[in-house]
Amino acid sequence: MLKLHYAPNSRAERVLWLLEELELPYELNSMPFHPEALKSDEHRKRHPLGRIPVLEDGDVSIYESGAIIDYVLEKHKNGGLKPSVDSPEYPYYLQWFHFCEGMIAQPMNTIVVHTILLPPERRDETVLGQAQRLASKSLTAIETALDGKEYLVGDFSGVEFMTGHCCTKLSDLGCVTDEMPNLKAYVERIKARPAFQKAISTT
Amino acid sequence: MLKLHYAPNSRAERVLWLLEELELPYELNSMPFHPEALKSDEHRKRHPLGRIPVLEDGDVSIYESGAIIDYVLEKHKNGGLKPSVDSPEYPYYLQWFHFCEGMIAQPMNTIVVHTILLPPERRDETVLGQAQRLASKSLTAIETALDGKEYLVGDFSGVEFMTGHCCTKLSDLGCVTDEMPNLKAYVERIKARPAFQKAISTT
Repeated sequence: MLKLHYAPNSRAERVLWLLEELELPYELNSMPFHPEALKSDEHRKRHPLGRIPVLEDGDVSIYESGAIIDYVLEKHKNGGLKPSVDSPEYPYYLQWFHFCEGMIAQPMNTIVVHTILLPPERRDETVLGQAQRLASKSLTAIETALDGKEYLVGDFSGVEFMTGHCCTKLSDLGCVTDEMPNLKAYVERIKARPAFQKAISTT
Repeated sequence: MLKLHYAPNSRAERVLWLLEELELPYELNSMPFHPEALKSDEHRKRHPLGRIPVLEDGDVSIYESGAIIDYVLEKHKNGGLKPSVDSPEYPYYLQWFHFCEGMIAQPMNTIVVHTILLPPERRDETVLGQAQRLASKSLTAIETALDGKEYLVGDFSGVEFMTGHCCTKLSDLGCVTDEMPNLKAYVERIKARPAFQKAISTT
């Protein structure tokens, strides 16, 4: 059985959402998002830097949320929720799948650090402002791509677990504004999915 | 014909290296790594934030280096330089492919900003030190993974254009130390490849 090493409010939510969406059986090892658990010798054997998610599947044990999502779709859904290589949507599936870690994750991390994680006296308004502007530009690109569409690629695809998940987090951080009506509706559409709700309420 | 929008010393090198390695015919639009070119109206039509690489292939125009590399391997090399889905190497191919943007790119960018891009009076030693320590931990994970191997996955794979390319850049930034003999040899092995040399010497 698939075993997901997980902590709430982290990239591991992406994988939990996927497993719920695909209705795959899985075992969950939920850990607190705290160094004592994540940096333990036991967890460092799974991920040398003590990060989550990690997915075990028999003898296989891998990390990186993008890799895990692609692995599960290929191995356990026969390439489902991905356009085929000869589909006109295929290149844009890849583009939006990688856009998440390539363009959004870095400013999102910075916003979290300078609004939540650091004590107020160590937060840097200049660094925060730069990250918010970059996040806003990336979100505007998504706003445009969503024009006339319910999801970024096709009816619903693997992209949602990456870039879509990031959009819900940036919305929670106040970065999705009234000037982004397509994106607001997209975030609401994702948040209404029962599998997503199950994932984000799992502790 | 494939058309690559490129700037030297950027993520676009990854794609140029790939095209050279696969001996695919291509047209190159080389731009200076400068806002005047990258933020022009013309280039913003290709990438809304004015980034490179962008690849055109007939009616297709996509960005994100990871997406472009996967697209080229699937469309123009019939899945070459990738293990098949049922190979034991497949999950680790995905893991190391995504490790690049997921773990290494963010501290690498910070190191470049605080050692090269910012004027000396605006560089922050604390921020730089954190990024260097995180990069070192990620490189140590690669050092371990390379034990007894010439390349991260198989004889040579798509992973090299992502995580391998990052390793060469971090080596140039002084982050690959004598305590990482496997990684040093790996970087030298990549740098000795004629296709890599052609890519990094193209302006």
